[in-house]
Amino acid sequence: MEYGLLQGGKRVRPLLVYASGEVLGADHPRTLDAAAAAIECVHAYSLIHDDLPAMDDDDLRRGKPTVHKAFDEATAILAGDALQTLAFELLSRHQDDGLDAGRRLRMVQELARASGYGGMCGGQALDIKYEGRGVDRATLESIHRHKTGALIRAAVRLGALCASRLDEAHLAALSRYAEAIGLAFQVQDDILDITADTQTLGKTQGKDLAQQKSTYPALLGLDGARRLAGELHQQALAALADIPYNTQTLEAFAHYIVKRDF
Amino acid sequence: MEYGLLQGGKRVRPLLVYASGEVLGADHPRTLDAAAAAIECVHAYSLIHDDLPAMDDDDLRRGKPTVHKAFDEATAILAGDALQTLAFELLSRHQDDGLDAGRRLRMVQELARASGYGGMCGGQALDIKYEGRGVDRATLESIHRHKTGALIRAAVRLGALCASRLDEAHLAALSRYAEAIGLAFQVQDDILDITADTQTLGKTQGKDLAQQKSTYPALLGLDGARRLAGELHQQALAALADIPYNTQTLEAFAHYIVKRDF
Repeated sequence: MEYGLLQGGKRVRPLLVYASGEVLGADHPRTLDAAAAAIECVHAYSLIHDDLPAMDDDDLRRGKPTVHKAFDEATAILAGDALQTLAFELLSRHQDDGLDAGRRLRMVQELARASGYGGMCGGQALDIKYEGRGVDRATLESIHRHKTGALIRAAVRLGALCASRLDEAHLAALSRYAEAIGLAFQVQDDILDITADTQTLGKTQGKDLAQQKSTYPALLGLDGARRLAGELHQQALAALADIPYNTQTLEAFAHYIVKRDF
Repeated sequence: MEYGLLQGGKRVRPLLVYASGEVLGADHPRTLDAAAAAIECVHAYSLIHDDLPAMDDDDLRRGKPTVHKAFDEATAILAGDALQTLAFELLSRHQDDGLDAGRRLRMVQELARASGYGGMCGGQALDIKYEGRGVDRATLESIHRHKTGALIRAAVRLGALCASRLDEAHLAALSRYAEAIGLAFQVQDDILDITADTQTLGKTQGKDLAQQKSTYPALLGLDGARRLAGELHQQALAALADIPYNTQTLEAFAHYIVKRDF
């Protein structure tokens, strides 16, 4: 569990929890910590299972052997299972910080919906269903919205839910922001799979092409994919404009998403 | 998910949720339903993952092909993952039945603790660690208390937590009952692996022996294992005697545990 969770990575989802909480003045830091840790646990478990031979069969993750390579398959399956459980244990653990139980129960629900059959797991299943087949843009977007987008959206919403005074309109604007950057993140991932080298990427470059996966560059061309990333960037900023607080960190993050080269 | 969850089985854990809730006069039937469904989801997910080639490599479960045989390994991994998530979604879903959020958050925590590294998953990891090696009785008991006992204990506790007026002393007595029948269940499983035939059992008979697993009959002899089951039965009844309500269903269940032949 430790090897799969704590060997680095970009920590995108925890960052979004904190940045979103900061925007709304989250006054429950321990719950913010729990939410950030919980969502990273879910992300880490999904990578461990995704790397398994029966799934993507990856030997490298963040430049290191994947969990089933460093240990064995049974350990990787169990470590992933227990990391998912730990996420819900963290969110439900008593935090003596005054955030009411109703709000924390809602956080459990947010994370569960984003992770399960209607979110990340459903997206993985769609991804497998269409593997090796060309898909149209709508299907590709649906795969990504479930597989990666749902958890990014949940990160932003969990952060917001740590603020005592929560305006549902602001939560909705943050969700629109997250949906745009979530998709932009994936578009950029597809672009990097073509343009970056294996060392910079920390995983095997050109893997999507080799596996005949549908990608945005394949559907729209490299320039078209870059244009789409730019449009999603603008959508993200427009959503933030509906929030009357300081959203600088989230703006900077949207910028990073489409400019990053690893 | 449906195939792995709804193809039968003994439904021991949901029964315990309802029976335990009944003892304390649980007045939140929809939460009782959610708890019963949630714990069965966790149990079903654990069986799906446990049957995988990298784990126990079982082809049959309840007389039918296991999930990875009926579908494929990737689907089995994902279906298990999403069933675990569904458990927490069910517990956290808004139930318009008046049970307060604090209590429901505690139910999430109970299920998470019983399922994760400190409970079921930890027990599976121990089981794998000692596979093919003889273990002493204390280690075998620790494996079972984690691997199967923790979830049976959680079932009884979740049922109790659906009662508005909850006495912690009664919760503790119910937990002692559950610990005794949880272990008795495993002892009886070990006995049945030797004495029952494959058709009655719905899974491959003699599998423990073939895999050189430590079992109670191996450690204590068949008669010694039967004596232990009887002692645990008595411990379970003694725990129920500390509860001043009608515990008939739980008594009958303790009886069934040690008398069942499948």
